[in-house]
Amino acid sequence: MLQHPDILHLMQSDMERVSNRVSAAARVRYADISPMLDDIIAAGGKRLRPLLLLLSARSFAYEQTYDTLITAAAGVELLHTASLVHDDTVDRAAIRRGKPTLNSQLDTGSVILIGDYLFAQSAMLAADTGIPRVVSIFASTLGDICDGQLMEMLEGHDLNQTTDQYFARIYGKTGSLFAGAAEMGGVISLAPQETIATLREFGGEVGTAFQVVDDVLDLTGESAGLGKPAGHDLRQGTVTLPVLYYMDDHGRDAREAVRQVINGEATEVQITDLIEAIRASGAVERALQDAETRVAAALDSLDRLIPDADACRDLREFARLALNRNA
Amino acid sequence: MLQHPDILHLMQSDMERVSNRVSAAARVRYADISPMLDDIIAAGGKRLRPLLLLLSARSFAYEQTYDTLITAAAGVELLHTASLVHDDTVDRAAIRRGKPTLNSQLDTGSVILIGDYLFAQSAMLAADTGIPRVVSIFASTLGDICDGQLMEMLEGHDLNQTTDQYFARIYGKTGSLFAGAAEMGGVISLAPQETIATLREFGGEVGTAFQVVDDVLDLTGESAGLGKPAGHDLRQGTVTLPVLYYMDDHGRDAREAVRQVINGEATEVQITDLIEAIRASGAVERALQDAETRVAAALDSLDRLIPDADACRDLREFARLALNRNA
Repeated sequence: MLQHPDILHLMQSDMERVSNRVSAAARVRYADISPMLDDIIAAGGKRLRPLLLLLSARSFAYEQTYDTLITAAAGVELLHTASLVHDDTVDRAAIRRGKPTLNSQLDTGSVILIGDYLFAQSAMLAADTGIPRVVSIFASTLGDICDGQLMEMLEGHDLNQTTDQYFARIYGKTGSLFAGAAEMGGVISLAPQETIATLREFGGEVGTAFQVVDDVLDLTGESAGLGKPAGHDLRQGTVTLPVLYYMDDHGRDAREAVRQVINGEATEVQITDLIEAIRASGAVERALQDAETRVAAALDSLDRLIPDADACRDLREFARLALNRNA
Repeated sequence: MLQHPDILHLMQSDMERVSNRVSAAARVRYADISPMLDDIIAAGGKRLRPLLLLLSARSFAYEQTYDTLITAAAGVELLHTASLVHDDTVDRAAIRRGKPTLNSQLDTGSVILIGDYLFAQSAMLAADTGIPRVVSIFASTLGDICDGQLMEMLEGHDLNQTTDQYFARIYGKTGSLFAGAAEMGGVISLAPQETIATLREFGGEVGTAFQVVDDVLDLTGESAGLGKPAGHDLRQGTVTLPVLYYMDDHGRDAREAVRQVINGEATEVQITDLIEAIRASGAVERALQDAETRVAAALDSLDRLIPDADACRDLREFARLALNRNA
């Protein structure tokens, strides 16, 4: 029996087209900035969002709408990149994807303008599809991302936040663009409405699960793959799912330890001890279990609606790729 | 003979609808930010850009496309507001429209996110028109604005820049959104293609002239109306048209004096002396003459293409309103 080919291999040539569109759209004539932009774009990781967009379209009018799919996929990737550029400034992060951020190389003003420029280019790609519904998804996704980031900034440090608040926040910040990418793939390739809705839901769940895994990796210190320092969220004052579960299971002292770290009152030793305690507590496993349960439910819905068994298997593999970040 | 009514009065109820759409779109549920956003929106000045959009549509299918025109006009105003929010951070300006900027009240991260949020809302309004060409104008205008701001940041301090470079920069920064607003008005109201192109050109010229006047006012110190400190551009290291004309007419010493101010090597007395010298040199008048010549030529083209004499007169009055900033 033939083994089903790896999706990254299967989609390689299509994804190269996406990368070329992204690079072309992000080109600037300014010698001071151009190489930095090239670096950001080149460091683009697995490009999961455009991959999801393309995979969502595979069992529908993929060939007939191919150019539009590539354009939208490039727009989605650039929107993600623009959002990372601004996010790094908001976070004051010095490292991203294992490379120095723009934030660490340029003054804030330049970084704001470069992020805006990339937003503009991504909006132009969305407009280039010529499909009003794709443009609407693009615009409302940008709104959801900003809202998620505002929630993180304004409410992320709150020790009394519920897990619902946490999930609403990471849905905005991360889930929404996966949801929008999958929806766009369905819309462009003329999938039935019910399928488009299910694709959107699947994207949202995978994106949300992806962010849970990201938040877990931030704590478990497997930071080489993430390219940023361990325990970064806690040090920044952001409470994530495993921290909520840890406080939930370990009473008053645990809560006080978290409060001190979040408020910047803890020593380095206290921070390290807290991270160790959370890791040993089972909270990480509980958070990862949540992520897997969400994705499994979304996959079951897809199985019922996507006619092509290969396309279904590819989306299943995509979910695995998004969750197994070190694979 | 009846006097033609003042355009601000004539358009008052339509512009109130625009303001209501803008306020509704900029509403957030965050108590920390909501009043600040309300302040920015309320301080919105004359709302020249949405006014131009509506006036550009007046002699075509205005009533039939009214709702779409209001939506697009609100989108244009919000795009302008978002761009001001980021621009103030780039400039580190503390005062805008006579009020403290967000930049002076919040940390940079919050200001970036709030600007992004407003961009997202403006993109949603553009998408709500459901007209692909309007969305394309919106997206490419955003690109032009960013490009103009990048030019200002990267090349604005160059003493060897040409007036062409100056005009390209201010077209991007300011002219492009006036051009886009006029074009959207024509597109939405189903104006003939040739008229749309002429409206776009008119908008670009008025917007460019508006920026020349802004740059002049920055030097002539009539800053109460502008709501920012006098000589701000020079202190920031940005060379504007009257400064270029001054250097052009006054040889080596003048150039050296400008160089010192631009490079931050000048004392306060030297800065004040330079501003006085530029004011007395005729460079200001020469710059203003440029602005008026551009607008006059654009108005003549409009006269030939817009059938309705009242609509033409309104656009003529709009140009006067944009140029006579203290009127």
